[in-house]
Amino acid sequence: MTEAQPAGAAPATFAAALGAIVGAAHLILDPAAMAPFLEDWRGRFSGRALAVALPADTMEVARVVAACAAARVPIVPQGGRTGLVLGSVPDASGSAIVLSLRRLNRIRAIDAANRTMTVEAGCLLVDVQQAALEAGMLFPLSLASEGSCTIGGNLATNAGGTAVLRYGNTRELCLGLEVVSAQGRVWDGLRGLRKDNTGYALRELFIGAEGTLGVITAAVLKLYPQPKAALTALVALDSPTSALALLSLMQERCGAALTGYELMSDLCLRLVHTHFPDLPRPFADHYPQYALIELSSNESEDHAAGLVESAVGAALEAGIALDAVLASSVSQSIGLWKLREHISMAQAAAGKNIKHDISLPVSHIPDFIAQTDAALQAAFPGCQVVCFGHLGDGNLHYNVAPPAGIGHDGFLAHQDAVNRIVHDNVMRLQGSISAEHGIGALKREELARYKDPAELDMMRAIKAALDPLGIMNPGKIL
Amino acid sequence: MTEAQPAGAAPATFAAALGAIVGAAHLILDPAAMAPFLEDWRGRFSGRALAVALPADTMEVARVVAACAAARVPIVPQGGRTGLVLGSVPDASGSAIVLSLRRLNRIRAIDAANRTMTVEAGCLLVDVQQAALEAGMLFPLSLASEGSCTIGGNLATNAGGTAVLRYGNTRELCLGLEVVSAQGRVWDGLRGLRKDNTGYALRELFIGAEGTLGVITAAVLKLYPQPKAALTALVALDSPTSALALLSLMQERCGAALTGYELMSDLCLRLVHTHFPDLPRPFADHYPQYALIELSSNESEDHAAGLVESAVGAALEAGIALDAVLASSVSQSIGLWKLREHISMAQAAAGKNIKHDISLPVSHIPDFIAQTDAALQAAFPGCQVVCFGHLGDGNLHYNVAPPAGIGHDGFLAHQDAVNRIVHDNVMRLQGSISAEHGIGALKREELARYKDPAELDMMRAIKAALDPLGIMNPGKIL
Repeated sequence: MTEAQPAGAAPATFAAALGAIVGAAHLILDPAAMAPFLEDWRGRFSGRALAVALPADTMEVARVVAACAAARVPIVPQGGRTGLVLGSVPDASGSAIVLSLRRLNRIRAIDAANRTMTVEAGCLLVDVQQAALEAGMLFPLSLASEGSCTIGGNLATNAGGTAVLRYGNTRELCLGLEVVSAQGRVWDGLRGLRKDNTGYALRELFIGAEGTLGVITAAVLKLYPQPKAALTALVALDSPTSALALLSLMQERCGAALTGYELMSDLCLRLVHTHFPDLPRPFADHYPQYALIELSSNESEDHAAGLVESAVGAALEAGIALDAVLASSVSQSIGLWKLREHISMAQAAAGKNIKHDISLPVSHIPDFIAQTDAALQAAFPGCQVVCFGHLGDGNLHYNVAPPAGIGHDGFLAHQDAVNRIVHDNVMRLQGSISAEHGIGALKREELARYKDPAELDMMRAIKAALDPLGIMNPGKIL
Repeated sequence: MTEAQPAGAAPATFAAALGAIVGAAHLILDPAAMAPFLEDWRGRFSGRALAVALPADTMEVARVVAACAAARVPIVPQGGRTGLVLGSVPDASGSAIVLSLRRLNRIRAIDAANRTMTVEAGCLLVDVQQAALEAGMLFPLSLASEGSCTIGGNLATNAGGTAVLRYGNTRELCLGLEVVSAQGRVWDGLRGLRKDNTGYALRELFIGAEGTLGVITAAVLKLYPQPKAALTALVALDSPTSALALLSLMQERCGAALTGYELMSDLCLRLVHTHFPDLPRPFADHYPQYALIELSSNESEDHAAGLVESAVGAALEAGIALDAVLASSVSQSIGLWKLREHISMAQAAAGKNIKHDISLPVSHIPDFIAQTDAALQAAFPGCQVVCFGHLGDGNLHYNVAPPAGIGHDGFLAHQDAVNRIVHDNVMRLQGSISAEHGIGALKREELARYKDPAELDMMRAIKAALDPLGIMNPGKIL
């Protein structure tokens, strides 16, 4: 803190200044009390911090940021801390403060006729969903950590999830933002407008910037009518190519009624049944691949059922699908989704593995899987690829586990080599090395390796323009 | 062409350098030949230019921009020149070149399985639509100037149009961009990915920046399945409040099948019938307001018909709608849409008027219309407000014509006073002074008047970061 405290202020002085802003009860200085704010969600890393500040509202956030700017103290904005790429925890230097948005947790307004909701950054996603439901509408963002993650974190990382196919990423669900700039200025961009062409897309720039350009404090979100019915089907397939053919057929016949399209390999299902033997076994036989399909209707359950039956029937008749199960009740539908949702947990139970959150043009997915599987088998004979994901969005979770008999910890030593094979193939097929998790600190070097230098230079220019002191979440992304 | 043109290089030297890049046949220096590139679409303004350059491809664009950067010569990128806010024509100084993208007009690729198309900036929108259709798919962007405007211009202005309710603005229809930076560097961001969280949203920043940050040379666009049927209905209503209630009812019942929802007042229809007496007259009586509704189905014509009949029937029963006409053939549907499409032409035939392209939270539209109409009547008794637009998007075209007996040219002298009434009301109700047309040179002062200073400062910082020489379309937006 010496160098960074130009006016000669001691840490105690700086802490006193923060305490005067947020109140002593909301400034954590004790290392033990700070610990939960410093630890990565997966428990792989713990950073250090000068302090954890929990401001009550936007004005307090602005004053904290201004104080940090004056003292050149870096700021790590933090929501639910559920990120998977070390984006919301401080590094080991201990030079930064953690700025937790958890106390900014009010639903400020719901405008039913405009189908919008204004929420503060620290609202839990599940509370946002619930408030929409109580107003008779749908906020469609849905992901595994929805009980713990905050909408501010979802916006900062442009979270994806299971409803992107129909409703888009978090970016597409946001109409307006309130942001505290790196100078501690409040920008009120809380517009609830579907069309607004008055200058540069600042909203878009802060969304997905992972807190490196400013602090999102509130947002106007889009709401949708609640579908009257949602039906689930599990379809057995011989290959990823057939999964693509089925996706295309479903899109042609169902349009926007197709709200989910997930791919799972046979190995995924076997793992799930090994570790969660009580979950349903929809088919007597095994098939190479499975598509989990969700159809929603604004009309009726009969309409949704008719759509899914005729579309899946056509796929069976055309030989695209090998077998199919249609859920005939809500509990059957939940059971089918549980198969998908338990893959990560089953893998965790089996041991550590090397994870990739990648995306590709949907058309390149069969090639990617075939070529990457082959390259990994050549390099690590017998390794196990657990591949599943949001096929409709081109997003695969492509996780590599060791060959049988090789220890999981030992295999992790090959992480760089595995990443190189996977990510080189992603880039060759015009994909992305981070589909929905972001870059954080974890993928920063991969980003520098793979990103077009012209793009990196523009990103750096924007960072320098909006955060010239470099205090906003340093070491993340760039 | 030493480092800076003002340092003594003659215009002839600079012209020779441009000619060496694009070929003499594609560099226009003759004022008469330049004239069509300098004139505003509405014919209200003609600028001047050093030259008009028509490069053949992205590399030539990059070399032209680099030459201009070296010589500090401003660049006005130009597509179909159909913009309505003087964004694509040079100012009167004659210091800039016009960079026409018209020769970059190739459809580079269609990826049917990924539902994407890669196109160059100079492609006409109608050609993009046609290429999608020939591939069995839909590119949904649709607007009045589609036969003349280019996709590059649509992207640079984030064009709206008639399908925003279902498919979003141009921004939502674009997955990737190729851009020549203000330094003449090519950024290849031609990604066809639905999910990609690897850094700042540069794509979003260039979309809607009206050529002030760089030159869009190509884009990856989203394609959709062609709907199997589209049905049109015209519904008579007593007020904008009822129009909102009907919109909400249609959204609840039809979801994404509701692809168009336009509002027209009785005065709009009367004007259309006065100047185009052969167009259909769907109702024997007159009603205060009309909603033009389009429903699309991926299933069948019967499905679309059933949806619209039951929804409109419910609205009639609930007293929300006063009367309704459902088109029973494609030609009837076209006839109904012609009523909407001829409003601007009817107004032009009636004489000049003061136009506004505004948006509001949908919920504020009834208040806005009532309060603004009243304020205008108080200031200009008898003035005629022609109000219509994309109600589902909150976007109104709110045009003010003089009271009967007052000359149209004379009334235009009150433009500032009229704008003040309209735009002050827009801002009071959290709206936007430019919903889909952009800012250009025409609304630059209005932007400076109404925009949050914190937002303007961030915009200026980004402009300075990406275009430090200030050569990209100067005098537009900022």
